[in-house]
Amino acid sequence: MQIVVLAGGIGGAKFLAGVRAVARESGSGVTAVVNVGDDVTLHGLRICPDLDSVMYTLGGAADPERGWGRQGETWTVKEELAAYGAEPAWFGLGDRDIATHLVRTRMLDAGYPLSAVTEALCARWQPGVRLLPATDDRVETHVVVETEEGQRAIHFQEWWVRHRAALPAKRFVFVGAEASKPAAGVLEALSAADVVLVAPSNPVVSVAPILAVGGIREALTAPVVGISPIIGGAPVRGMADKCLAAVQTECSAAGVGNLYGARSTGGLLDGWLVDTTDAGVTIPGVTVRSHDLWMRDERSTAEIVRAALEVARA
Amino acid sequence: MQIVVLAGGIGGAKFLAGVRAVARESGSGVTAVVNVGDDVTLHGLRICPDLDSVMYTLGGAADPERGWGRQGETWTVKEELAAYGAEPAWFGLGDRDIATHLVRTRMLDAGYPLSAVTEALCARWQPGVRLLPATDDRVETHVVVETEEGQRAIHFQEWWVRHRAALPAKRFVFVGAEASKPAAGVLEALSAADVVLVAPSNPVVSVAPILAVGGIREALTAPVVGISPIIGGAPVRGMADKCLAAVQTECSAAGVGNLYGARSTGGLLDGWLVDTTDAGVTIPGVTVRSHDLWMRDERSTAEIVRAALEVARA
Repeated sequence: MQIVVLAGGIGGAKFLAGVRAVARESGSGVTAVVNVGDDVTLHGLRICPDLDSVMYTLGGAADPERGWGRQGETWTVKEELAAYGAEPAWFGLGDRDIATHLVRTRMLDAGYPLSAVTEALCARWQPGVRLLPATDDRVETHVVVETEEGQRAIHFQEWWVRHRAALPAKRFVFVGAEASKPAAGVLEALSAADVVLVAPSNPVVSVAPILAVGGIREALTAPVVGISPIIGGAPVRGMADKCLAAVQTECSAAGVGNLYGARSTGGLLDGWLVDTTDAGVTIPGVTVRSHDLWMRDERSTAEIVRAALEVARA
Repeated sequence: MQIVVLAGGIGGAKFLAGVRAVARESGSGVTAVVNVGDDVTLHGLRICPDLDSVMYTLGGAADPERGWGRQGETWTVKEELAAYGAEPAWFGLGDRDIATHLVRTRMLDAGYPLSAVTEALCARWQPGVRLLPATDDRVETHVVVETEEGQRAIHFQEWWVRHRAALPAKRFVFVGAEASKPAAGVLEALSAADVVLVAPSNPVVSVAPILAVGGIREALTAPVVGISPIIGGAPVRGMADKCLAAVQTECSAAGVGNLYGARSTGGLLDGWLVDTTDAGVTIPGVTVRSHDLWMRDERSTAEIVRAALEVARA
């Protein structure tokens, strides 16, 4: 079986560990199509937070406490940059992480597409699934915020990390998405897929920018099953509630399910897996099932994946 | 009094600490015109070893044992780059140092000339003398070496650091020197100078690339006094002997003095300060004096500077 997963960073990475476990048992192939809307250039370094979260997590090198970045990380370069007064100082740029960004930036400057760079980095980490950026083009999530001087658009990272999503977001803009094309390998993977799983990632700023890449929505011909990132009215982690508010969507399994919508009405989903707490939710035209959605460890996450694959078969 | 010093890296930095001490007593101004021939781009970072050695040393942040790089340095990024198989792995790229290179690379990419970047970096280090790169243009020292496959040219750093100057050098080429111009401020400093001191730096790969920059030689109108980097037939530090051999010059105070030559015969020097061990050396047309040239500490180095200024007055 060929499984494609649409994924953001930390939640996507945890979910993918479960997908990998299930795929190993069944001899299936897994391709992760990862959000690049969070990517940013800081201090001249090209940083891909979601791709790196997935790569480090599946490579066994992620910090388990913090949830992002490298285990055993140190912060010497960041402190030195701050001592020079180099802005921005608010982004968590670890020493180990910087090596990844240096290799990536150098390869991009040499003309390699991000998909090829990601493959080269993964030669070290051996994530056990194929990692693809949603696009090799530059697609950046900007956030339109209300300030005292009126509305202005800031990079997603500035809103998320610097302001901790506390500035009210009016809307999200995926700059460059209209002109973007799927990265090398994405359309082939979708066309060969037996099922597409939408990881329990942030629907507004992780999954939406993947779907905004030109041609990806149209290529979703296999059954699509989403896993709710909201359990009992609260995001499993992160600040999805802030993002959902900006798109006038209720922070609930039903709210996100309806935001994605049924394939039969031009939406994304054939199936929707919600937590047992949210059992009874219905989305018109979508097969909804419930399962314990807490990703406590790889084993419980693999159970979630099996439940999602069951929905796809239904 | 206005003093200009032509300087390389580590030896130049030590010497400049003495010049600064003397200048503070007399209320003189000091401008260091520093070699950029060693500069190199590695892992996408623009690295200026000589400027940084001077900046860190005068800023009190240099590693006193190693002689280059930052005190309390760590090597996390370098180890991670090696884990990716990123080449070259032979260059000593410290974490603290990398912050300097990131700031520099970012400013250069934004279009600032190296002289402006150096000034910005010095705002943090307050070296107490004005640091100028010899040129804002790209001048790179390449070394023509003999290999089994015949002669080929490699970057100075590859010869110096990777091969520890063990590959026989046929000659040195200052790539870009012919088309280069002095950096902003260099000609003004030379024109205002009461004396120009040539630091006891490597004559072949530190001082020569400064003099190779178009217009610098012609602007040396003030008395020029050199301090011998060779004491009793051996370099004070570094591998000047290997460099001198390549230009068929005896590794001695007389050899280097004659290599620089007398101003009256189209050369560089009005005065030449040698160690007491080398007392009796004569260079036709040049005032030669001897003095203890071991730079043990700032005080002994200041004595050397005073002796050199005496030669200029003679």
